[in-house]
Amino acid sequence: MIETDIIVIGAGPVGLFTVFEAGLLKLRCHLIDSLPVPGGQLIEIYPKKPIYDIPGFPIVNAGELVDNLMKQIEVFKPGFTLGETALTLDEVENHFIVTTNKGMKHKAPTVIIAGGLGVFEPRKPPIENLDKFEDKGVEYIVRDPEFYRNKRVVISGGGDSALDWTIYLIENKIVKSLALVHRRTSFRGHLDSVQKVMDMANAGAIELITESEVVGINSNGNGHVGSVVIKHANLGDIVKEADHFVPLFGLTPSLGPLADWNLEIEKNAVKVNTLDYSTNRKGVFAVGDINTYPGKLKLILCGFHEGTLAVQSAFAKIHPNKKNVLKYTTVNGVSGF
Amino acid sequence: MIETDIIVIGAGPVGLFTVFEAGLLKLRCHLIDSLPVPGGQLIEIYPKKPIYDIPGFPIVNAGELVDNLMKQIEVFKPGFTLGETALTLDEVENHFIVTTNKGMKHKAPTVIIAGGLGVFEPRKPPIENLDKFEDKGVEYIVRDPEFYRNKRVVISGGGDSALDWTIYLIENKIVKSLALVHRRTSFRGHLDSVQKVMDMANAGAIELITESEVVGINSNGNGHVGSVVIKHANLGDIVKEADHFVPLFGLTPSLGPLADWNLEIEKNAVKVNTLDYSTNRKGVFAVGDINTYPGKLKLILCGFHEGTLAVQSAFAKIHPNKKNVLKYTTVNGVSGF
Repeated sequence: MIETDIIVIGAGPVGLFTVFEAGLLKLRCHLIDSLPVPGGQLIEIYPKKPIYDIPGFPIVNAGELVDNLMKQIEVFKPGFTLGETALTLDEVENHFIVTTNKGMKHKAPTVIIAGGLGVFEPRKPPIENLDKFEDKGVEYIVRDPEFYRNKRVVISGGGDSALDWTIYLIENKIVKSLALVHRRTSFRGHLDSVQKVMDMANAGAIELITESEVVGINSNGNGHVGSVVIKHANLGDIVKEADHFVPLFGLTPSLGPLADWNLEIEKNAVKVNTLDYSTNRKGVFAVGDINTYPGKLKLILCGFHEGTLAVQSAFAKIHPNKKNVLKYTTVNGVSGF
Repeated sequence: MIETDIIVIGAGPVGLFTVFEAGLLKLRCHLIDSLPVPGGQLIEIYPKKPIYDIPGFPIVNAGELVDNLMKQIEVFKPGFTLGETALTLDEVENHFIVTTNKGMKHKAPTVIIAGGLGVFEPRKPPIENLDKFEDKGVEYIVRDPEFYRNKRVVISGGGDSALDWTIYLIENKIVKSLALVHRRTSFRGHLDSVQKVMDMANAGAIELITESEVVGINSNGNGHVGSVVIKHANLGDIVKEADHFVPLFGLTPSLGPLADWNLEIEKNAVKVNTLDYSTNRKGVFAVGDINTYPGKLKLILCGFHEGTLAVQSAFAKIHPNKKNVLKYTTVNGVSGF
């Protein structure tokens, strides 16, 4: 059981900055995120894209912003539970218990949900029995490339994710063999990535199977992926031996498990009041893109403000008899834990 | 008459960033500030101090933050009326007219007050008839050092401002003569500034008159400063010929003229609602340190959020029939005027 002052659900930019504002009030935070690294959408969706509307940055790369935020909160030593989804929110004696899909439990008097667009769920191809092979050779996200060391891998997809992982796994000589299956002959990705993949195919380093789809999965006899059935638009089916099938068709956000946390939901977001971005459950706040209120703008800079006000109320709940005087960092500096 | 979409009163960090958010909605801004340069408190009070609580900046120098913001809004070509105080706010046919103390008029359908701590008013020494010599040889702020070219100047004060200007005016060989008058023998300033001033006094470059106060001002016969009376703690009075007397005892903030703009005032700040940070006057908003609402925190990052929401409502007033769809800079980039 991890115990802390504030459980922050979501380690995107708003969740990260919330740690900073909590730290100024001497409150400790522990963050939970279903993604394997901090940064949320910034890392998952657009790590290399520029952002122009972060105040004080005429331009900042999304990944760089996350790095800066991680550096800014370093002094407050936040804890992280990454690669796990916050599944349930229970209340026990004025405390909350948040349990992840892997059974990790977190206890704190307050919870700040900074869940962004929610949980990113993979777009799954319509293959019968696909679910049956999940974690048994079918993965929708490449969490650790080493997992595929000396394996026969079939990737499908035509975007940057499929292209980039194909390139990575080949260039780093990780896989035994790799086939890239794509429905069309053209790719939606960076031109130089497309060129690289074409070159790899021409050099025989990968098998590029276009105008095709994976339509079936066969077991190796032990319930694990053994081969996939690939259907060509005109040429019929082939069966290809494989240890792993990795469909990379992108991720779609969904509110995820917190839809069942007895929070007031509106427009697929958590309803809050603008006094302190508290939800209908006392001690539970929602900040950033996951919340809604009249006039809400889904901007990172708004989340920074919301998180800042939420920790003020969190402080009041945690230390009901302690006076909280706003101190300016310019005058007082920042002292960590 | 300057015409624009939004008159922004105050060119501190929040006023500056408001220009950016307005620009994204294709609204033009004109800023008015009583200080001679943009930056507000950041420039006036702590240009060289570090700030630690701007999201994404583990540390940023206040002056650097202003430079960044100026760069960020450059593309939207804001207008500036600097060194003038917004004096009156009138309403004419669904438009506002803001007139400065120097008579400059500005017209726009909306006004966003980002006035920070208000107008900075100089702390004035208690000298009879001091007011009579204002702009006639008595200045409380050094706006342009060249103004003192070849003049005989008496500065009084013991802080950084008095020390820094003494050093500047001597090192750049601007003044004919300079006397620095200070009540004590020790100074409240950077040690190396104090040392420099001591060295200048020892070298005869300035006259350093400690344990003394300026207690009177005499006219030169034309109503302009001609000499000052300096009272030493033990040694009695001396009369010193001078063209300028510059008391640098710091600036204190006050709500200033806008206290009379029929805005609801509470706790020496403008009351707003948190939907769009609008005041009781339709079309007039207040953002940043100048406003108040339940739970208000006087933080720059909160002002960024408030300004962002205020321009949304400003847009709705300016273009009542136009739909405003939030566009992300990461997707759409920023196109200026």
